[in-house]
Amino acid sequence: MNKDLRPIIWNDSEKKLVLIDQRKLPNELVYFECKNYKDVCFAIKDMVVRGAPAIGVAAAYGMALAELNGEDMEKAYLELKKTRPTAVNLFWALEKIIAAKNSGKSLLDEAKLIHEEDIELCRKIGEIGEVLIDDFDTILTHCNAGALATSAYGTALSVIRFAHYNGKKINVLSDETRPRLQGAKLTCFELNYENIPVKAICDNTAGFMMSKGLVDKIIVGADRILSDYHVFNKIGTYSLAILAKYHNIPFYVAAPYSTFDFESKLEDIVIEERSESEVTHIDNVRIVAEGVSAYNFAFDCTPPELITGIITEKEIIYPNK
Amino acid sequence: MNKDLRPIIWNDSEKKLVLIDQRKLPNELVYFECKNYKDVCFAIKDMVVRGAPAIGVAAAYGMALAELNGEDMEKAYLELKKTRPTAVNLFWALEKIIAAKNSGKSLLDEAKLIHEEDIELCRKIGEIGEVLIDDFDTILTHCNAGALATSAYGTALSVIRFAHYNGKKINVLSDETRPRLQGAKLTCFELNYENIPVKAICDNTAGFMMSKGLVDKIIVGADRILSDYHVFNKIGTYSLAILAKYHNIPFYVAAPYSTFDFESKLEDIVIEERSESEVTHIDNVRIVAEGVSAYNFAFDCTPPELITGIITEKEIIYPNK
Repeated sequence: MNKDLRPIIWNDSEKKLVLIDQRKLPNELVYFECKNYKDVCFAIKDMVVRGAPAIGVAAAYGMALAELNGEDMEKAYLELKKTRPTAVNLFWALEKIIAAKNSGKSLLDEAKLIHEEDIELCRKIGEIGEVLIDDFDTILTHCNAGALATSAYGTALSVIRFAHYNGKKINVLSDETRPRLQGAKLTCFELNYENIPVKAICDNTAGFMMSKGLVDKIIVGADRILSDYHVFNKIGTYSLAILAKYHNIPFYVAAPYSTFDFESKLEDIVIEERSESEVTHIDNVRIVAEGVSAYNFAFDCTPPELITGIITEKEIIYPNK
Repeated sequence: MNKDLRPIIWNDSEKKLVLIDQRKLPNELVYFECKNYKDVCFAIKDMVVRGAPAIGVAAAYGMALAELNGEDMEKAYLELKKTRPTAVNLFWALEKIIAAKNSGKSLLDEAKLIHEEDIELCRKIGEIGEVLIDDFDTILTHCNAGALATSAYGTALSVIRFAHYNGKKINVLSDETRPRLQGAKLTCFELNYENIPVKAICDNTAGFMMSKGLVDKIIVGADRILSDYHVFNKIGTYSLAILAKYHNIPFYVAAPYSTFDFESKLEDIVIEERSESEVTHIDNVRIVAEGVSAYNFAFDCTPPELITGIITEKEIIYPNK
């Protein structure tokens, strides 16, 4: 296993996309192979691959596979586009692919370029953001905005990684992030894999930790950022931002520019509601009393007044300055 | 199954304490029998019985069993006292028992009295508190402050029950309440059992629901209330109170006077840390990546400035008026 965690691998000799099957982590590191765009659609929908930047890269390869297999490109585009509604990087990557197609480029080359660029963007986010981290900081993060959510390094976790690479002694608290537990399963796996000290907490414990002075900074990723800096991210992010404000703790968002949606207005964005079984069951065991249903909103929206800074590959944006 | 849910039953002919085994809910309604005080100690520690008032009642019967069995009363007292550290009702009930013993009363009669009184207190809390509930309110609650946490009716859920009994059309949102999921497992079971409309949400979803105007009131229970109205309750309560303040939503605590600790100061209270396996595993399946540990603080402390009102069996206390 390569120390440099790569969730998306293009196998050029066999012309297939190989994904870390994130549904199986942390207990098994197994791979999921996509030989055509339909496999990619399934992988995105069922969260074999997840995380806004990673979804974008996978979708680009999905289009490349459709071209290689001589499939209906219009159909592939439409099906890939509707796999997940929130991550704007998906639409951004598909638009880049369509532009490449219209100018007669190879879609596989374009997908590889998007893939390589994503690695580079994440590296830059880490380098730019790590200046915000002090020696001995404890950093709280939510969900998984890590290598597993991107092509490498991650966004929020890239900042944490580069602070660690630069010798800063840091500790990380990882919200478990119900219902799908990406924090407990993926972030803890990923940081432990690189020997970055991390401990898990339940989502409802973050406020207590802040009140005890045990959180110095909060860094999360983003699925979509509007031009007025409203940030859509994993459910629970908004609550964390309010708790951070109450305790006067800096709250940062880390995301590449491809996460920006300069066109939509706040009221245009529909929050994805996923199957209630993600809440009512854990690993196929029913936890909510029989006969009772659940809400399962996958994302929430954090307004700019609660955000200290947005770390991109170009600069740190301060929405309130 | 009696519609009036009773988690604690004294079997007088066989001289044993019969508890609903809350570790098995909501999937099985089975009973756990205590024939001596050691069984009661186990039942409290392992959360067969939980909820501050219910722990007090069970401990009282534990002392009665020790007397009936001719066991070492001093030892029984000390062992019962250290079963759980936060719920002050435990110490309150044990003191009442010791006082009864010192005045030569039957401990079984005293335990029965404490039991009957608890039912009455909970009924009064419901009757007094239900005036705060309006027709068509959606009420958010956390953990289980219900019949299952008391001798009957509950505290927070007694308020909800009596609003329902009085014909008010209400909806309840139940935080699942990680790590032990008392909201998902017990509160949803209990309210559904009485046909009170309830839906489960993950703990990290409460802020989003508030931002959408989908929460009218919040009511929780308490494990300990200090004389300056600091409230110790299930982890996550403090975060909810901050979110409620931010959204200008009334935040109520419901508890009998036996929950008040008039002697301790804020700095005296040590927050119970339970086994990290409650966080790292769900139903014996590991969810946190191997090699990563977790914090498991069971309670937090909500300061009076975040509390709209405290509903007791005597009156509603307004800490900020």
